[in-house]
Amino acid sequence: MLENKQNRTELSQLGEFGLIDYISQSIKLRNSSSIKGINDDAAVIDNSGKMTVVSTDMLLENIHFDLSYVPLKHLGYKAVTVNLSDIYAMNATPKQITVSIAISNRFSLEAVEEFYEGVALACEKYGIDVVGGDTSSSVHGFIISVTAIGEANQEDLVYRDGAKETDLICVSGDLGGAYIGLQLLEREKRIFLENPNIQPDLGGNDYVLEKQLKPEAQKEIIQLLKDIGVKPTAMIDVSDGLSSELFHLCKQSNVGCAIYEDKIPIDPQTYNLAQEFNLDPTVCALSGGEDYELLFTINITDFEKVRNAMDISLIGHITDKSEGLNLITASGSQIALKAQGWDAFSK
Amino acid sequence: MLENKQNRTELSQLGEFGLIDYISQSIKLRNSSSIKGINDDAAVIDNSGKMTVVSTDMLLENIHFDLSYVPLKHLGYKAVTVNLSDIYAMNATPKQITVSIAISNRFSLEAVEEFYEGVALACEKYGIDVVGGDTSSSVHGFIISVTAIGEANQEDLVYRDGAKETDLICVSGDLGGAYIGLQLLEREKRIFLENPNIQPDLGGNDYVLEKQLKPEAQKEIIQLLKDIGVKPTAMIDVSDGLSSELFHLCKQSNVGCAIYEDKIPIDPQTYNLAQEFNLDPTVCALSGGEDYELLFTINITDFEKVRNAMDISLIGHITDKSEGLNLITASGSQIALKAQGWDAFSK
Repeated sequence: MLENKQNRTELSQLGEFGLIDYISQSIKLRNSSSIKGINDDAAVIDNSGKMTVVSTDMLLENIHFDLSYVPLKHLGYKAVTVNLSDIYAMNATPKQITVSIAISNRFSLEAVEEFYEGVALACEKYGIDVVGGDTSSSVHGFIISVTAIGEANQEDLVYRDGAKETDLICVSGDLGGAYIGLQLLEREKRIFLENPNIQPDLGGNDYVLEKQLKPEAQKEIIQLLKDIGVKPTAMIDVSDGLSSELFHLCKQSNVGCAIYEDKIPIDPQTYNLAQEFNLDPTVCALSGGEDYELLFTINITDFEKVRNAMDISLIGHITDKSEGLNLITASGSQIALKAQGWDAFSK
Repeated sequence: MLENKQNRTELSQLGEFGLIDYISQSIKLRNSSSIKGINDDAAVIDNSGKMTVVSTDMLLENIHFDLSYVPLKHLGYKAVTVNLSDIYAMNATPKQITVSIAISNRFSLEAVEEFYEGVALACEKYGIDVVGGDTSSSVHGFIISVTAIGEANQEDLVYRDGAKETDLICVSGDLGGAYIGLQLLEREKRIFLENPNIQPDLGGNDYVLEKQLKPEAQKEIIQLLKDIGVKPTAMIDVSDGLSSELFHLCKQSNVGCAIYEDKIPIDPQTYNLAQEFNLDPTVCALSGGEDYELLFTINITDFEKVRNAMDISLIGHITDKSEGLNLITASGSQIALKAQGWDAFSK
């Protein structure tokens, strides 16, 4: 009744980015107040004052989170911070959010309370107002949609398309931790399901667990960059993994890049646990995702300002587009990067 | 693992509005730019220029729509217009939307295309830009979350809390049609499931089907009110039924109301089909929902300007709070109105 079977393109062939590309192509902007539409972390709207910046994300149970090991309070916190992360990635200041949820009768009010406690905690920490939302029942599972709204002076906004050859590539914090935290939680879940009498053994791994369960948005990095007088030439938040974000940034800036394996910041806990799981720590950083760090490029003249900044690592530089995107390994060989990202439809 | 079973409040006891009340109480606004938060159709943000108005809605398959009779193109159209309706209900002009969808592998690209064709059609008709969104896979069904962003001069905004005693109560268009359209679609679905060889018989009922499947937002009513120089004292859109919206408006304005049964606008097609279904047409108008008409109050001195306006019906007046909310029936008796609305969790 609904679909023409003869002319069917599987979404699995397209992948998430293919689908976004398709949708982008079919959209054109009409209003002069719509400064920036899709294809960046957030939209920009000019209502004659400061720029309004908007970003939205949807989170689904058993796709984006597993309630068998994600506490609802953490989930509420994370649902907010992953959206704020997109606003900071525009070099803007988040101010408001809307929070919509759909839940089945499986959940009690206390469960919803726990979720909103996490939302409130994130709002308090980041100085955000909840200005709207929608609640609904669902047939299956817990669904969350958050839209974040921020503001910026026009001259402060940083897009994905401003990286130029010779710019330096920087990343905040460290990478791969959220992915390793997820591996740890998945392992303990398997053990628990096999033998419910064995209690989860998560001790001593607080850092990677917190990166996965309760990620922070990089408010302080944005402040730090202001304090040291550096405006990035391009910026994006690391939600799908370093490799995927480099592809977005280079594609939109029409450039290539070279990054150095031994410069990629990886926390010792991430490194050790990756080895325990027989995973390559560099691959975790490149393709793991969910770190919500900021990846940005700076003009080479800003090198001295950034080189000693806490929590910022210089990991490479922008090249001509013809050179492609490359990883220089610790042993000095050059490998072409692959866009990995999170391909929702191939699973 | 997740919930404290000893202290469990079922959401079914609370209902949707109870849950919203709970959430509202736990939220306080921090930023001076957050002019209006939840408890109205949309949020209002002051970024030093015009006011930014934001509204969001989530739609779930088998809760809000049934794809066995809702064409995807109509669904895309409706997902946009129901959000625009909230912006118009603030007497603001919608300018941008974000559209997030989650879909299972059951859907093809052509299905997504169809959905976005409907989105694009609504955007073209209402002059809206799609400025963002999110796509994701789902385990079950089709999930849509739309956020609409509009603008208004501060002095033009109309809230739910401005109705005063002696104000007249107006409604645009007619009511109950969307609900009757739904009854018709549900009946044909049952017949089809019982005997798939019988083709649906929907002929001659275009009006109520369109009210249900492809509702419009009341852009023209907002323009008309501007043209005739009337600024409503309070306004809300009719998404859950006239009765429910009167409760919201009277509660927030701290007033009562009296509406007249024989003044409630009901289309002849709605009326006749209601009788065919053994439904009271007035009950369909009061509790049916999804009409997306505008319910508003005006100062009594504006009576002459509105009395002959096309598509606006005067249905009653605002009273002192102590008198409560009443329906004066066609036979002259007075009945207390009940808040019905759409109670998502009792189903």
